[in-house]
Amino acid sequence: MSELRKDPIVDRWVIIAAERGHRPSDFKAPTEPPKSGGCPFCEGNEATTPPEIYAVRDGSPPNSPGWQVRVVPNKFPALAIEGKLIRSGFGRLDRMTGVGAHEVIIESPNHSDDIPTMSADHIALILDTYAHRTNDLRRDERFRHTIIFRNYKGEAGASLSHPHSQLIALPFIPKLAREKLVSAREYYQNKERCIFCDLIEQELNMPEQERVIYCNDYFVILSPFAARFPFSVEIYPLQHHHDFVAMDSTTQLALAETLQFILGQYKDLLADPAYNMTLQTAPNTIPRPGHPDYWSSIAYDYHWHIEIFPRLTKVAGFEWGTGCYINPVAPEKAAQYLRAKASSSPGANEQ
Amino acid sequence: MSELRKDPIVDRWVIIAAERGHRPSDFKAPTEPPKSGGCPFCEGNEATTPPEIYAVRDGSPPNSPGWQVRVVPNKFPALAIEGKLIRSGFGRLDRMTGVGAHEVIIESPNHSDDIPTMSADHIALILDTYAHRTNDLRRDERFRHTIIFRNYKGEAGASLSHPHSQLIALPFIPKLAREKLVSAREYYQNKERCIFCDLIEQELNMPEQERVIYCNDYFVILSPFAARFPFSVEIYPLQHHHDFVAMDSTTQLALAETLQFILGQYKDLLADPAYNMTLQTAPNTIPRPGHPDYWSSIAYDYHWHIEIFPRLTKVAGFEWGTGCYINPVAPEKAAQYLRAKASSSPGANEQ
Repeated sequence: MSELRKDPIVDRWVIIAAERGHRPSDFKAPTEPPKSGGCPFCEGNEATTPPEIYAVRDGSPPNSPGWQVRVVPNKFPALAIEGKLIRSGFGRLDRMTGVGAHEVIIESPNHSDDIPTMSADHIALILDTYAHRTNDLRRDERFRHTIIFRNYKGEAGASLSHPHSQLIALPFIPKLAREKLVSAREYYQNKERCIFCDLIEQELNMPEQERVIYCNDYFVILSPFAARFPFSVEIYPLQHHHDFVAMDSTTQLALAETLQFILGQYKDLLADPAYNMTLQTAPNTIPRPGHPDYWSSIAYDYHWHIEIFPRLTKVAGFEWGTGCYINPVAPEKAAQYLRAKASSSPGANEQ
Repeated sequence: MSELRKDPIVDRWVIIAAERGHRPSDFKAPTEPPKSGGCPFCEGNEATTPPEIYAVRDGSPPNSPGWQVRVVPNKFPALAIEGKLIRSGFGRLDRMTGVGAHEVIIESPNHSDDIPTMSADHIALILDTYAHRTNDLRRDERFRHTIIFRNYKGEAGASLSHPHSQLIALPFIPKLAREKLVSAREYYQNKERCIFCDLIEQELNMPEQERVIYCNDYFVILSPFAARFPFSVEIYPLQHHHDFVAMDSTTQLALAETLQFILGQYKDLLADPAYNMTLQTAPNTIPRPGHPDYWSSIAYDYHWHIEIFPRLTKVAGFEWGTGCYINPVAPEKAAQYLRAKASSSPGANEQ
C-alpha cells in the first residue's frame, strides 16, 4: 500500500506510491500509447479494465458495450480504496496510510473523440459523471477532498490517448486547496465578500476587458492577471458557489459549451497542444459526528473553478527553487489571441 | 521591461517577461543546442556574449580567453538590471516593475566538462563565484533575495549544453523561501532550535540511516522522507548556517566533493538524467536605513541547502491541481540505490 508522508517544512503531503515504479530503468522509456485496436478504454474492450464503478448506459449490463461515459478504478492507483486510515508520527515527521480513491472517467466509447468535437450534451454527461462520483465518494468518511483532472497528450502526463479524465479522493486537504481556502476565508472575514467574486467583477467591469476571453450567462473564461503559463486560463461560475456538484443541468450545459470553446481555441490556434485541466472545488462538507472539521467549516468561502494550461514552457530550476514563474506571454496578449475567432472586438463575445 | 504581478489568491509573484516569447508558434519547436564550435560559452567566443561581469582569470584581460569561470548577463534576461523598483496597485491587484539581475555562470571554458569530471578545486571555484556574485548583488538595495540554479539538459530547461548555472536576484522574497522561513521561524520561536538541524539530526541518529546517502565532515546528502520526485536529494551543511556565502574555502571544497559524488552517482546509476539543482539560501540581511524588513529579521532561522532532482517523472494535473505529488520510488530505496558504489553497508559511507 502507498504511504502518505508530510514534508514538515513546506507542509505538503506526498504520496509515496512505491508499487508504481521500481527500478531506475523503468523511467528511461516514455510510455507509448497503444494503438487504437488494443486500447482498454475503447468500446468492446470493457473486460480489459477493472470492473466499472459507474456508467451512463441505455440499459445494457455493466462491463459490456452500450455506454456513453464509463468510470473504472485506475489500474495503477496512487492510493488504495481498501484499508483503514491510520495517522502516525515518525519521530518529528508525520505519515498516514495511503487510502483514497483513484478513478478514471472514460469520456467516450470512441477512441478519436475529443472535447472540441463532442456534442455539448455529451460533455454535460461527463460533467454530471464528475458530480455523481464526487458525491458518492464524499459519503466515505475517510475522504476529505476530491480533485478531478484531465491530462491531454503524453507531454502533459497522459499514458493513453483515448479521451479520459481522472478523479482522486484524498484523506486530507491538499496544500493548494488550503492556500486558496485560507485566502478566501481571510478576505471574507475582513469584507464579507468573496475574493474570487471581487476579482471576477474587476475583470468584467474594466472598460477594455483585456483579460476576458469568453463569457456566457453562467461562466467566464479569464486570462489570469498573474498567469504562470502562456495561454493558461481560469473558468469561473459567475454566480458564487463553493461546490461544482451543485450545478443544475442548464449550468452543466453552459459549462460544456465553455469548455468546448476554449479547448477548441487551443486546438485551432495553438496547434493542438498538450494541456492539463484541473477542477478545483471545496472540500467535503458532510458533517462527521463528533469530528467538527475546520476546513469543512470554511468551505463555503470558496468559489469553485477550473484551471487549464497548455504545456508550452518548461518548468525548471528557477520555478522549482522559488515557487515563482516566468511567463513569456502577457496575459492580455494571450486573451486577445484566444478570443480571436469568437469575435474581433473584445467586448462583443459576451452573450 | 518585464512586469512582476502577484496572484492574490495564492500570494505568488509571477514574472511577465513578454519580450522573451511572442507568438504561439515560437513555442512549437524546442531550442536546439548549437554545435560545440558555435557555442557562445566556449573559450574563444567571449565576444558573442554580453560583456562579462566577473571572471576567475590568471591576468588575462576581460572578455578574452584565459578564464576558468566566467559570469555574463543572461542574453534574454527575465528581469532588467536597470530601472527603478516601482510598486503599484491595479484595482485589487498588485504589481511592480520587473527589475532584478539575471546572470549566467559559465562553469568551465570547455564545452564537454561536467561536474562529475571536473576537479573538486574547480567546482570550489564555481561555488566561490556564486558567493561572490551574491554578495555583490546584495549591495543593491532593490534586491531582497537570490536564487542560484542549474538546469542540466534540455528536458530540465537548459537551452545550451555548455556547463553553466544561473543566478537571479529578485526584488521580493519568493513564495517557497517565505514558506520555509515561516516554518523555521515558528519552530525556533517555539523551541529555540532550528527545524532543519532537528530533522538532519533525526536522520543521522536513526540506527539504519535509511535516508542518508552520503556524509562527510561538513555536508550530508539526504533522500527526503517526503521526497516529491524519485531520486531527489537535499544537501545540508551539518553546521547550522543561514547563508551559503559564509562558507570558508575548506567548506567550499567539501561541498564540491559532495556535489561531485551525487552528480556522479546520477550520471553512472541513473543513465545521466536531466536534472534541476537549486541553491536555497536566506534573504538579503544587509540593513536598509529606515526600512527594517521582516524577512531579513528572521533570515537567521534559515538553514541553507541545495535541492537536486532528476527529471524522471511528469508533473501533471494531479500535482498542478493540488500541490501534492506522487513519488513512485520510496525514498529509502532511492537512498540505497544512490549509495551503492560508495559502500555496500549504509553506515560505512560516513568519513
